[in-house]
Amino acid sequence: MSDSLITPRTMSGFRDFLPEMMIPRERLMETARQVYRKYGFSPIDTPTLEYAEILTGKGSDETDRQMYRFQHGKHDVAMRFDLTVPLARFVAQHQNELGMPFKRYHIAPVWRGERPQAGRYREFAQCDFDTIGTTSIASDIEIVMVINDLMRAIGFEKFSIRMNNRKVLNGVLEKSNLAEHSVPVLRALDKLAKIGRDKVKTEMAEATGASDEQLDQILMLAEIKGTANEVLEQLVPLCSGNELAEQGREELAQIVAATEAVGFPEGTLSIDVSIARGLDYYTGTIVETFLDDLPEFGSVCSGGRYDNLAQLYTKTELPGIGASLGLDRLLAAMEKLDMIPPVKTPADVLIVFFDKSQLHYYLKLAQDLRAAGLGVELYPDAKKLNKQYKYADRRGFAATLIAGGDEIERGIVQVKWMADGTQVELPVADGGKEIAEWIKNQQG
Amino acid sequence: MSDSLITPRTMSGFRDFLPEMMIPRERLMETARQVYRKYGFSPIDTPTLEYAEILTGKGSDETDRQMYRFQHGKHDVAMRFDLTVPLARFVAQHQNELGMPFKRYHIAPVWRGERPQAGRYREFAQCDFDTIGTTSIASDIEIVMVINDLMRAIGFEKFSIRMNNRKVLNGVLEKSNLAEHSVPVLRALDKLAKIGRDKVKTEMAEATGASDEQLDQILMLAEIKGTANEVLEQLVPLCSGNELAEQGREELAQIVAATEAVGFPEGTLSIDVSIARGLDYYTGTIVETFLDDLPEFGSVCSGGRYDNLAQLYTKTELPGIGASLGLDRLLAAMEKLDMIPPVKTPADVLIVFFDKSQLHYYLKLAQDLRAAGLGVELYPDAKKLNKQYKYADRRGFAATLIAGGDEIERGIVQVKWMADGTQVELPVADGGKEIAEWIKNQQG
Repeated sequence: MSDSLITPRTMSGFRDFLPEMMIPRERLMETARQVYRKYGFSPIDTPTLEYAEILTGKGSDETDRQMYRFQHGKHDVAMRFDLTVPLARFVAQHQNELGMPFKRYHIAPVWRGERPQAGRYREFAQCDFDTIGTTSIASDIEIVMVINDLMRAIGFEKFSIRMNNRKVLNGVLEKSNLAEHSVPVLRALDKLAKIGRDKVKTEMAEATGASDEQLDQILMLAEIKGTANEVLEQLVPLCSGNELAEQGREELAQIVAATEAVGFPEGTLSIDVSIARGLDYYTGTIVETFLDDLPEFGSVCSGGRYDNLAQLYTKTELPGIGASLGLDRLLAAMEKLDMIPPVKTPADVLIVFFDKSQLHYYLKLAQDLRAAGLGVELYPDAKKLNKQYKYADRRGFAATLIAGGDEIERGIVQVKWMADGTQVELPVADGGKEIAEWIKNQQG
Repeated sequence: MSDSLITPRTMSGFRDFLPEMMIPRERLMETARQVYRKYGFSPIDTPTLEYAEILTGKGSDETDRQMYRFQHGKHDVAMRFDLTVPLARFVAQHQNELGMPFKRYHIAPVWRGERPQAGRYREFAQCDFDTIGTTSIASDIEIVMVINDLMRAIGFEKFSIRMNNRKVLNGVLEKSNLAEHSVPVLRALDKLAKIGRDKVKTEMAEATGASDEQLDQILMLAEIKGTANEVLEQLVPLCSGNELAEQGREELAQIVAATEAVGFPEGTLSIDVSIARGLDYYTGTIVETFLDDLPEFGSVCSGGRYDNLAQLYTKTELPGIGASLGLDRLLAAMEKLDMIPPVKTPADVLIVFFDKSQLHYYLKLAQDLRAAGLGVELYPDAKKLNKQYKYADRRGFAATLIAGGDEIERGIVQVKWMADGTQVELPVADGGKEIAEWIKNQQG
């Protein structure tokens, strides 16, 4: 073995998760799993590597360019760049075993060889949930309910779910005789918040040659403001006379009414007629989710309804609706909003290794406290006390326990609450129950 | 878009996890996380892709050959083939932020381009835990305690943790003047169970030119049988006079004594002096874990102590001890032992969509039952009842709820226990509490 060291480093655009970030990241994933499961979404997993042919099938030029793709043996293979293409392949392949409707979630990393930039990584987790094989509005409603539950379970109260329906947009374009220009119109509309009305109008005029009147009707649609019910009201005349637009409006109305019936807090769900979310994938309901305190983070949970998920792989028509939680983006938002406690250990308590001759005693105490529900670490060496306390402090243990010969004889331990230094003596004879209770009380 | 379909398929050696396997797989991972956390191991994550230089540094020729390695831009990159090399790189890179001792777990997939064979995959999950930065025997004891807790938490009762110490083997080889031949001797010994005493002896003789007496002493060591304390007893004369061997024996004795002190069930831990686990990595304690009912599955949780984890990346000496749960192998074992219920949904209850006009009622009922602690799926369409019941049966829901106009008027639902068809009427006025209670009671 050579004496020269290899510099330890990660690749550009990749990162390590240290405990202080991985603990909340795991909690976030576990919260998502719990919410998805409560609605009957089942977990699946698919391989990281797929034949490149499978993944490029549906990709845009951009995703193709960003794919980690290479030759392995005689095969052209690639790492997945999202969880939707693998889902389409998966459902087409296993449709008979799965049965429809099929509700799945999938939490897994994806890879995109983008140019690295602040806050953007080449490896990041996606957290998708979809209901496939039904066109029922009940599934659209449920997706919105899941997002609401998910955001609150994570700890957010100030957020808004913005909803639209592609049928409204497409129907109004039909009505204005601009259906053939839907791509440039929607692309321009998506920039409304960024570049403003005038520039959007100019862009649309250039792309479509449409009249001022036509463009005003489109812009009027995109600029509707108000509560969900106010927007629905204003949509009536704009949609009137076009079947598609009326159907889209009706679907929005059904979702709004259902969320009211299940007791959504007012203002959580709004209708934003300007959002289009890409150009040709979604066909009905579209949703985005914004944090009130960090609107610049963009949508943290987005999705929508599609008519035919897996047309590249099967003739079976598979409509569905789903959304994706931007897990790593949300984690960054939580960090920015001070929602992440500075804790580097998942355990509550450190047992100080005080008396070298009492290893068995400490091991047993730790085991009893674990059985009583606590996370417990025993410091492995009988080092100096200040060293062990420093370690406890640095890791963020909530409490330390210490017992020397005297305490052991008296059947007690000294419990120290690290945040304020409060110290109490508690008995151990009950198998640590009182200690566990005291600590859980302190934690609130 | 072309009309010809792409055949949906996974690559050779890769696989999809459908819900019926992914549900227990997630449960297994969650159980592992909970046990690790209880002992104060913290989660980390590292990138899937690393510079090939980092990963090849420590690899054997075999792992090098199996690596998924490719050119990306101007970089030679590779997918990790285990979690130990990334851990070494991680700890070397972040040692100042981490502080020592450092306890981490890491649950993540790894990739090896082996020739696919029955039960072996090219992508599989590893589930590692390690304590780094201490040589204390307390950490060795803890690793054994974690394995015991982990196996029981997963649901195994009949398993045995087999332990050895490399110092015993190496010390006895020293004593027999065979230290320089330790590699072929250990390699031969590792085959004892497979090829038998005579062939092992022949192989050792050919490789070392050692005398019959020397070889008999080695074989005597490897063939010691009995309870942990009986083996310790028999080791006394064999180790006597060699410091290394005596130290190894003493460490084994300390671990045995500590597990007795914390109340390990008898027979869970044994000493098997023949296990060597590879040739040059481990330096002290070695552990393997076998299922009594499926010994042919090999070890499902293995590990050991090492002197210097990250010598390729840092001059800091980092001793430690850790083990790895073979998650996917364990899952296969559980399947074989009928420990996996045939359930394709994580939800307990399906609400039948009976009356098309009552969508809001069903949505609210579902939400109430979720708040009361149940997992609840609402069938999305008001399809024929037998179709919905067939769906419930196929998915493995424990119970179905049905409410038509009459039930809704009376404020009740019909609850059907799917396993035996038991049907009861329960009220909904309490927000579903009684329903949740009844279902949890039925589930036992």
